[in-house]
Amino acid sequence: MERLTAVYHLRVPAGSADARATGIAVEQSVEMPVAAVTDPAILRDIVGQVESVTDLGSGVFEARIGLSVATTGLEAGQLLNMLFGNSSMHPDITLADAEFPDTVLNAFGGPRHGLAGLRKMAGAEGRAMTCSALKPQGSDARTLALLAGRLSKGGLDFVKDDHGIADQHYSPFAERVPRIAEAMAANGKTIYLPSLSGHLEQMRSQVEIARAAGVKAVLIAPMIAGLATFHALLRDNPDIAFMGHPAMAGSGQIAPPFLFGKLFRLLGADAVVFANHGGRFGYSPATCRTLADTALRPWGTLDAAVPVPAGGMTLARVAEMLQFYGKDVMLLIGGDLLSAGTRISEEAARFQDEVVRHSEAL
Amino acid sequence: MERLTAVYHLRVPAGSADARATGIAVEQSVEMPVAAVTDPAILRDIVGQVESVTDLGSGVFEARIGLSVATTGLEAGQLLNMLFGNSSMHPDITLADAEFPDTVLNAFGGPRHGLAGLRKMAGAEGRAMTCSALKPQGSDARTLALLAGRLSKGGLDFVKDDHGIADQHYSPFAERVPRIAEAMAANGKTIYLPSLSGHLEQMRSQVEIARAAGVKAVLIAPMIAGLATFHALLRDNPDIAFMGHPAMAGSGQIAPPFLFGKLFRLLGADAVVFANHGGRFGYSPATCRTLADTALRPWGTLDAAVPVPAGGMTLARVAEMLQFYGKDVMLLIGGDLLSAGTRISEEAARFQDEVVRHSEAL
Repeated sequence: MERLTAVYHLRVPAGSADARATGIAVEQSVEMPVAAVTDPAILRDIVGQVESVTDLGSGVFEARIGLSVATTGLEAGQLLNMLFGNSSMHPDITLADAEFPDTVLNAFGGPRHGLAGLRKMAGAEGRAMTCSALKPQGSDARTLALLAGRLSKGGLDFVKDDHGIADQHYSPFAERVPRIAEAMAANGKTIYLPSLSGHLEQMRSQVEIARAAGVKAVLIAPMIAGLATFHALLRDNPDIAFMGHPAMAGSGQIAPPFLFGKLFRLLGADAVVFANHGGRFGYSPATCRTLADTALRPWGTLDAAVPVPAGGMTLARVAEMLQFYGKDVMLLIGGDLLSAGTRISEEAARFQDEVVRHSEAL
Repeated sequence: MERLTAVYHLRVPAGSADARATGIAVEQSVEMPVAAVTDPAILRDIVGQVESVTDLGSGVFEARIGLSVATTGLEAGQLLNMLFGNSSMHPDITLADAEFPDTVLNAFGGPRHGLAGLRKMAGAEGRAMTCSALKPQGSDARTLALLAGRLSKGGLDFVKDDHGIADQHYSPFAERVPRIAEAMAANGKTIYLPSLSGHLEQMRSQVEIARAAGVKAVLIAPMIAGLATFHALLRDNPDIAFMGHPAMAGSGQIAPPFLFGKLFRLLGADAVVFANHGGRFGYSPATCRTLADTALRPWGTLDAAVPVPAGGMTLARVAEMLQFYGKDVMLLIGGDLLSAGTRISEEAARFQDEVVRHSEAL
């Protein structure tokens, strides 16, 4: 029976690391006293196995635990349940990483568009890409469409809905999305990513509305939608690119490089928005580097997911960010562009120009 | 425009508490520089408002922030997004509580069965209830049905699937659930709660299979399924009772009394499983007390949700747990009962008898 390896970091006293690792192996598999498991096949194939416990220093131990692939049912929600469901309740345990056999990679399949597909979609071969966001929520469809047209006029590659824009009465999805898509198409060739919300049925109808309006990509927050919903939508809509938003991703109990760079990518995210260092959120440069590397590195037959550092970024940081991330990135600047008011097309054009220019120098 | 009040705990230096509270108010609403918001209606109605910042001592500040109800779209996933989506990425912020106006209570509606309904279903008027779990995963349908029959013979009120039992090849839902339901009905009147997994469409078909097998209640992990999926299933299946499982609830970034006692209850959980103090997880007695009180207390027109303390509980703790929680509770003992092997019907009967007897003394 095939296993995946889940990697946990335990912040526990040295004397208890082995016992805690064994506890996790049981918790994340049979969840009952192993002595009471009588079926030898379950003891052999299903009960989690501690592969190693390593002292990483500073009071942190790495536990590598082999979990049965069969228990995941190769279903996205259950995969997360088996990796971290009950153990998420322990404040001294983080899910640092996981290594998956080909069975898992092939079952979920990864990005349908990925880095190469988004570049092609945007006409951005060989360079970094740009993205901005439509804000603030509370605006009506007409106002958002006006803003979208101005951003598109500036020549940006992508513009997404703010992740707080859902299907509210002041700007219903069915009214907003066609108007915004039309305004953007009339002013340029920027690709619009409307934000999906609700459950699978609601999101499916939102995708239909978006597709009918010529939309080629969408934004979704997988940790709010549920991973099963996220994966089902992706699989059923291969023509649409999916950008994953980090809402409800938590503050590190699931390591961001694993969550965004590996798990979201495995399930099919073509691009992953995450909190860049030095912005409004607390990720370190090292975490951001590892996250981007993980999203991009060769991984079986899976395409690369585009890292999208964001969260309080400014035009002043474009050169530095491209130095840090290289060309295989999409820079997302929202609020800072919007502060330009009526000069927003010019600011968007400056953002686009700087990204193109600095990309050439890389 | 109506507001809800979200209550955050900030573990920040005293000098920065006010600024951080203002930051959260912006992050959880317009998510852009407020100076760049030009629409006076958005400034007045949509931008989050800091209502108060209070020093709770020990380096913790309570920030009460008024958020526009309209931004939630009265949709469960978006409600969570607005309460905590981006702020979940800050390690020094927890979502401690939220207070909702009647608009929100009425939109989501709370339990359809609740404490009174589950008692009636189980014939458990005026007393605490019992529950056990079918384990280990990896067992086939025949084995689980045999175990279920034995537990039912012992006279338990409820028996649920282990939350790790999903729709795996070794025990597919469509085969397992009818067999287990049949075995339980043949041996007693215990109510079976099969575990739902996957996305909305998959869960809907699982509910259909369960209903056809005479099942009256199900188990679901809302933080894995997604809150929108959870709420849609509940609303569409008023005849079925829903027990919420805490998988992926995290280690306190969302305060457990709020998450289980309020948010899950608001969305319709009839019973909420949580980690009892003194078991495998780290909740304190005070947290458990507040959680149970929150789930049970009068709240608009919403029915009470049954607190279900669990996680490494034993028969030896029945009296103590009932002293602690009183009668308005369901005790869940899984692994400890299963350790009884072939004597499990007798152990189940002893569990049931002790709960009935100690309930009478309360």
